[in-house]
Amino acid sequence: MENRAKIEVGVVGITGYTGMELVRLLRHHPYFDLVQVTSRQEAGRALQEIYPFLAGTNVGLLPITMPDPELMARDCKLVFLAVPHGTAMNLAAEFLNVGVKVVDLSADFRLKDKDVYTTWYNVEHTQEEYLNEAAYGLPEIYASEITQARLVANPGCYPTSAILALYPALKEDIIDIDQIIIDSKSGTSGAGRSAKLGTIFCEVYDNFRAYNLGKHRHTPEIEQELSFACGKDIQVLFSTHLLPINRGILSTIYAPLKKDISLAKIISLYKDFYKGKNWIRVLPPGVLPETRYVRGTMFCDLGLVKDERTGRLVIVSAIDNLCRGASGQAIANANLMFGLDVNAGLDRGALVP
Amino acid sequence: MENRAKIEVGVVGITGYTGMELVRLLRHHPYFDLVQVTSRQEAGRALQEIYPFLAGTNVGLLPITMPDPELMARDCKLVFLAVPHGTAMNLAAEFLNVGVKVVDLSADFRLKDKDVYTTWYNVEHTQEEYLNEAAYGLPEIYASEITQARLVANPGCYPTSAILALYPALKEDIIDIDQIIIDSKSGTSGAGRSAKLGTIFCEVYDNFRAYNLGKHRHTPEIEQELSFACGKDIQVLFSTHLLPINRGILSTIYAPLKKDISLAKIISLYKDFYKGKNWIRVLPPGVLPETRYVRGTMFCDLGLVKDERTGRLVIVSAIDNLCRGASGQAIANANLMFGLDVNAGLDRGALVP
Amino acid sequence: MENRAKIEVGVVGITGYTGMELVRLLRHHPYFDLVQVTSRQEAGRALQEIYPFLAGTNVGLLPITMPDPELMARDCKLVFLAVPHGTAMNLAAEFLNVGVKVVDLSADFRLKDKDVYTTWYNVEHTQEEYLNEAAYGLPEIYASEITQARLVANPGCYPTSAILALYPALKEDIIDIDQIIIDSKSGTSGAGRSAKLGTIFCEVYDNFRAYNLGKHRHTPEIEQELSFACGKDIQVLFSTHLLPINRGILSTIYAPLKKDISLAKIISLYKDFYKGKNWIRVLPPGVLPETRYVRGTMFCDLGLVKDERTGRLVIVSAIDNLCRGASGQAIANANLMFGLDVNAGLDRGALVP
Amino acid sequence: MENRAKIEVGVVGITGYTGMELVRLLRHHPYFDLVQVTSRQEAGRALQEIYPFLAGTNVGLLPITMPDPELMARDCKLVFLAVPHGTAMNLAAEFLNVGVKVVDLSADFRLKDKDVYTTWYNVEHTQEEYLNEAAYGLPEIYASEITQARLVANPGCYPTSAILALYPALKEDIIDIDQIIIDSKSGTSGAGRSAKLGTIFCEVYDNFRAYNLGKHRHTPEIEQELSFACGKDIQVLFSTHLLPINRGILSTIYAPLKKDISLAKIISLYKDFYKGKNWIRVLPPGVLPETRYVRGTMFCDLGLVKDERTGRLVIVSAIDNLCRGASGQAIANANLMFGLDVNAGLDRGALVP
Repeated sequence: MENRAKIEVGVVGITGYTGMELVRLLRHHPYFDLVQVTSRQEAGRALQEIYPFLAGTNVGLLPITMPDPELMARDCKLVFLAVPHGTAMNLAAEFLNVGVKVVDLSADFRLKDKDVYTTWYNVEHTQEEYLNEAAYGLPEIYASEITQARLVANPGCYPTSAILALYPALKEDIIDIDQIIIDSKSGTSGAGRSAKLGTIFCEVYDNFRAYNLGKHRHTPEIEQELSFACGKDIQVLFSTHLLPINRGILSTIYAPLKKDISLAKIISLYKDFYKGKNWIRVLPPGVLPETRYVRGTMFCDLGLVKDERTGRLVIVSAIDNLCRGASGQAIANANLMFGLDVNAGLDRGALVP
Repeated sequence: MENRAKIEVGVVGITGYTGMELVRLLRHHPYFDLVQVTSRQEAGRALQEIYPFLAGTNVGLLPITMPDPELMARDCKLVFLAVPHGTAMNLAAEFLNVGVKVVDLSADFRLKDKDVYTTWYNVEHTQEEYLNEAAYGLPEIYASEITQARLVANPGCYPTSAILALYPALKEDIIDIDQIIIDSKSGTSGAGRSAKLGTIFCEVYDNFRAYNLGKHRHTPEIEQELSFACGKDIQVLFSTHLLPINRGILSTIYAPLKKDISLAKIISLYKDFYKGKNWIRVLPPGVLPETRYVRGTMFCDLGLVKDERTGRLVIVSAIDNLCRGASGQAIANANLMFGLDVNAGLDRGALVP
Repeated sequence: MENRAKIEVGVVGITGYTGMELVRLLRHHPYFDLVQVTSRQEAGRALQEIYPFLAGTNVGLLPITMPDPELMARDCKLVFLAVPHGTAMNLAAEFLNVGVKVVDLSADFRLKDKDVYTTWYNVEHTQEEYLNEAAYGLPEIYASEITQARLVANPGCYPTSAILALYPALKEDIIDIDQIIIDSKSGTSGAGRSAKLGTIFCEVYDNFRAYNLGKHRHTPEIEQELSFACGKDIQVLFSTHLLPINRGILSTIYAPLKKDISLAKIISLYKDFYKGKNWIRVLPPGVLPETRYVRGTMFCDLGLVKDERTGRLVIVSAIDNLCRGASGQAIANANLMFGLDVNAGLDRGALVP
Repeated sequence: MENRAKIEVGVVGITGYTGMELVRLLRHHPYFDLVQVTSRQEAGRALQEIYPFLAGTNVGLLPITMPDPELMARDCKLVFLAVPHGTAMNLAAEFLNVGVKVVDLSADFRLKDKDVYTTWYNVEHTQEEYLNEAAYGLPEIYASEITQARLVANPGCYPTSAILALYPALKEDIIDIDQIIIDSKSGTSGAGRSAKLGTIFCEVYDNFRAYNLGKHRHTPEIEQELSFACGKDIQVLFSTHLLPINRGILSTIYAPLKKDISLAKIISLYKDFYKGKNWIRVLPPGVLPETRYVRGTMFCDLGLVKDERTGRLVIVSAIDNLCRGASGQAIANANLMFGLDVNAGLDRGALVP
């Protein structure tokens, strides 16, 4: 870690779970050096004071500072923004203006159409000029755009799980695009690290529930990318549920097959589409994803089932919402933005059990 | 409990979770007296030796015996069969032959067509003559049949959650029957109380997975009853998932609306359909079911959402798989079979948290 | 519930877990009628609006009001105070002054010495005159005092688990009182129902930790009662830990045996001491308590172990912190205050699993 | 991983959680190359067939073979034995006889006195000659012995947590050795990966219980090492409890202080004792360990509390039972046996949340 040739990076917004996860991953990164972490509430403390599990590590004594783009620009070549939507857009512009690359983990630059953004997020977009510049940070799909980008909009957790699952089927035109249903279930870390009655332990434990049906903000993001995939406007029915687990999203996705095609052929199309993309594991017939198998990793496991009785394709996808669905993917994007191996610092196995 | 006028009943197969739940509910029943419990493995012990939480209760010292229909017929007017499918059918016949009424919690008498049974359960049906006699024990739908019956086929847990959710929509003909998708999630008690590697704690905890996609045995049961509801043959796509919780099934169900109909109207149709059926709680618009809200109870909570964008109806239903989905419903059926209030012994609130 | 002869009661402070649990238990009570529930934050709503699981029950539409002792005195003969310490003492006095009996679930009247109270709770005691009047509401020990009382100080959850476990050993003088160690573990509902970062799901799940070592406020309450038991001043070492479960306290208690005494004899002493107290289950040798076995009940399970190697007695006690450790015990006290069977409305079995 | 200079190692017994954890850690090891994995039940399959989360990793296709010391000796310089006690001792001898170093994760070589072994494990020891040769694999205490050893007895999980917590206090002679009480709580992975009714999900979830009080087999191992620490025979009271979590042991340890000594001084003694041992984190006053803070790591977090009221020292220690308490420690020992940095391949942060 003493290697001066490392690329210095910072994390803006260290108190949430995505900030925490960025630290977990960055501290072992072979080419990035985490030199700045910020938080308005916790500025002045050392990282290990708020995260005791970092004591005795190479980042435990890192001081938490106030976010200040100009000051940070002296040290950092890139920052990860782990702050709420609405706040991120202006911060991103400030960092870009002082020459710092940005991976934004918020929703602010994901939607190409600012009106759609305003409709779903109830916020005016103040940085419209960056909307088109921003690359959508899904490495399997947009690696070349990301490599060129100064600003990457890191995908949402649910969209990552849904888009990776559906992209090959849409590209290969094997499903009817009018009847796509995405039934997603997420671990509770997706609800963020802040005190809310609805997510205290006894309100979540030994319980399961649906929420935000028909109006989750990740809907337009999923539709935008699936529409790009097939060149037509797609509307999906997207449902979300809260799992009493820490990490993980499992999406069960339904769509009618357009023609008779064997499961073996479908699996083969998926494997071909993701050839060389090592994080996508297309499972053998009869094997289905489990959230634990991707815990703490970049893997997206895809299980494919052909329901012969109803002629539908069922795709089950599992990711870790914090790693693949947020901070790990952000690092993958940063890797590409500096011409590094996309997998640098991210080659980790699942913690099971 | 000393009241001699009580109706004496027995439970055959006490070591599983449905047997355990029958005891929990029966021991407070105002009209039934649990006088016999059986288990081949545990015969000779007192109930509290295998279930220490029953010590100090009125059933703790009840001796576990071998199942013997003739002997049990001396004491019991009705037995609950909590034994595996395949085993139940012959036992049921033996009890009926000696004049004991039967509520069978297995799958053996649920499917009217014995060939369908054999196809899905890989067992020949040896008691075909009872298939038509058996009433399907869903009290909201079949109360009059159940009241007349000597033999009730207690519904499966998933089918209970799915059928109650879809019945009014099918009866009222508001949904397209060709595109019904039922995405169900069940607590782990649904997997039974036996030692299997796949359900030990560390293989389930902090995990979520799909299983048996496209081939779950509850599929034909759901289809049979939904077909009865609308008078046409229905095929559904039915998916099952394993939740890391003890109890509860939540099903998220999707179907296209046939015509434009407001959510208020749909809710009103549901409330009318279930008028006077106090266990069905049709939730107000914007409120969605949670498994904890029905924990330990007979309630089936139904949340209705109209997805305006895709023109689909989303129905979310929640039940307790052990109580409403098995043993509580079995007692409700027994209540009807003896002309009692269907709710006798079952008026319980949820244990929250 | 239409029976006009019922005793009308109220609950002040309905939004916490103890308020919630009071409603769960009172709504089935054969002699009490819950007619008033209050909350400053939620006044004006119906109970089922904040607790959807109460919809369809006899209390679902009960309006939540502001707490007003004079108004409540018109309807209620007794109130349960489920409000924070410091707030409860003045409310209690107001209710007593208008002729309403009080069971106070806070700590305000548990400690006989107001200076000890002030030392541990950092609050001046403003109702000193009621300190001596208040009965300490542990029915197995103080039934006659409770029966006479207008004001009952409902015991803390940890103290209930510790005192019931140690009382017989101290009364029978079989343990050395200078080396008592109480290692307690509590479910997270003990931390209350309010939004705090430390108890959100992902900070508690799949985790275990100690907290407040050497300074938990229940320490002087335990010491006061144990000192009464043996007539000498006792100091204990009391440790608390947070379990990632909803309900339950399990305390493992250590003390040297004063003389050689067989385990059989110790068990016999305990059974004699608690003869006729049906909620205390002294387990057979080799059987140990589990929190699930008392879930939702009034039972206190006691497992006794003699560690032959070190000459120590190990007592393991398990209770449900919300039912036996708070609201259920409060109802037991109210039962006694009105000359009812202590067990009225409380004869419930555990929900397992 | 292509580096031919790597040291080839094998794992005997791949189907348990310690075998699984060895694979997790070894596959990223900079100097060891995992070339052989064995299992009698699963021989003939690839590793990823039984552990789907290993698909797409460098060990996913490793074939599982039958354990055969002679054959394995051709490839492996060292094997990890992850098989049951009783089985391990003979296997260890066979491997040593063909020149393969052994880290034995079972209990077979931990106790120096074979009669003590037989008393607690009910097995005759057939390899007495290796008992003295075996080093006890606690790197902070026995690094020099381990470095010289061909055979290392890897410590038990509970003993690791207890010995590391008590060693400095005993070495520095600040506690009374006659009254040590160790109250330990373990995650369920400690119960092993096999189908047993007592550890299926619904028997463990939302529950907490004590087990094996006064007779846990790790007792003599703890006593042996603590006796070595202070040069006197020590007997401890050791209690074990089952936590409904995957990983982690938290031990709360009580002992009277021999003299008045400040907490600051005690902390200072501990820090000095473990100077340079980076896995031991002696926490600041007021901070207490949590199992999540060590999840997946080699850390042993120690929280020290002086209970002024009773003059006792309370030590809270937390480890990951599978990593620090078994497989990670085994790799640390293997590192030492080959003259590598003890931390090689083990520098990992906790997965939080």
